[in-house]
Amino acid sequence: MANILHRIGIKTSSIDEVYRALTTRDGLAGWWTTDTKGEGSHVGDIVAFRFGAGGFDMNVKKLHAPNQVEWEVVAGPEEWIGTTINFELKQDGDYIIVLFKHLNWKEPVEFMHHCSTKWAIFLMSLKSLIETGKGHPNPVDVKIDNWN
Amino acid sequence: MANILHRIGIKTSSIDEVYRALTTRDGLAGWWTTDTKGEGSHVGDIVAFRFGAGGFDMNVKKLHAPNQVEWEVVAGPEEWIGTTINFELKQDGDYIIVLFKHLNWKEPVEFMHHCSTKWAIFLMSLKSLIETGKGHPNPVDVKIDNWN
Repeated sequence: MANILHRIGIKTSSIDEVYRALTTRDGLAGWWTTDTKGEGSHVGDIVAFRFGAGGFDMNVKKLHAPNQVEWEVVAGPEEWIGTTINFELKQDGDYIIVLFKHLNWKEPVEFMHHCSTKWAIFLMSLKSLIETGKGHPNPVDVKIDNWN
Repeated sequence: MANILHRIGIKTSSIDEVYRALTTRDGLAGWWTTDTKGEGSHVGDIVAFRFGAGGFDMNVKKLHAPNQVEWEVVAGPEEWIGTTINFELKQDGDYIIVLFKHLNWKEPVEFMHHCSTKWAIFLMSLKSLIETGKGHPNPVDVKIDNWN
C-alpha cells in the first residue's frame, strides 16, 4: 500500500473555522471544487465532488469535531475506490496545523504522483481560503501538468 | 519504508533545459535554494543546499541525460540521511513531465508530511523557472506552515 502525506499550517486562532471548511458544502466548495454536492457534516453523509466530467463520491466515515475528519472514496477513478482520506487538525502556536493523509493506494502509479502534487495545491487553497477569505477551488485551481 | 511522490508538467519543448535545472548550480539555485554550492553535473559530485541554518548535502548517484537524475542524501536532518531523491524526465505532448520520488523514509513522521508538501511547492518553482524565467527558491519560497 502507498500513501500521500501532507502538512500545512493555517494562520488562524479558529480551529472551528478550519473544521467547518472540511465539513460543510460551502466550506468544501471554497477550496476544493465549486461543484460540490452534500454537506459532509454527519457520519454516513455522501459528498459528491465533480471536476468537469469526472470526480469523486466520499462517504463520511469519522468526525471528531474539531480535530478529525475521515472519508472513504466510494465512487471515482478505479485507483481511488476504497482509499481513505484523513484530516487531522491541531493548534500549534499561531497556527492550526492540518495533517493530511490519502491512504491505501494499491500501487504507486503515475496518477498517484499527480494526485500527490495536486493535493498539496488544494491544501494551499484551503490555507488561502481561511487566511484571506479566498480559495482557489476547481475550476480556478492552479494547474500542475497536462492532466490538470 | 515510506515515499514521497510528485508529478509536474512543464510547458516547454526543451527537455535539456529541465535537465540543466537539475544538474547545474545555477539551475538548482534558481528553483530550490539560492544557497547552493557544487554543480551536480557528474556522478560523485557533492552538492550542498542550505536553507538558513540547516540544509542537505547530496551525492549525485546517477545521471542519464536528459532523463534521469538521482541523489543520495549524505548529510542533513537525521530523517533524510540515506534517503534517495530521483527525478525522471520525459516528453508528453507540449510538456516535459517530471516524475519525482523521495524514497526510503524510515517512518512516515510529521516532518515527512511537511517535506512532501514543500517538495510540491519547490517543483512548482522549477516549473515557474522554466516557463517564465523566474523561480521561487529559498529564501523567497512559498511558506506552507510554521516550520516554513
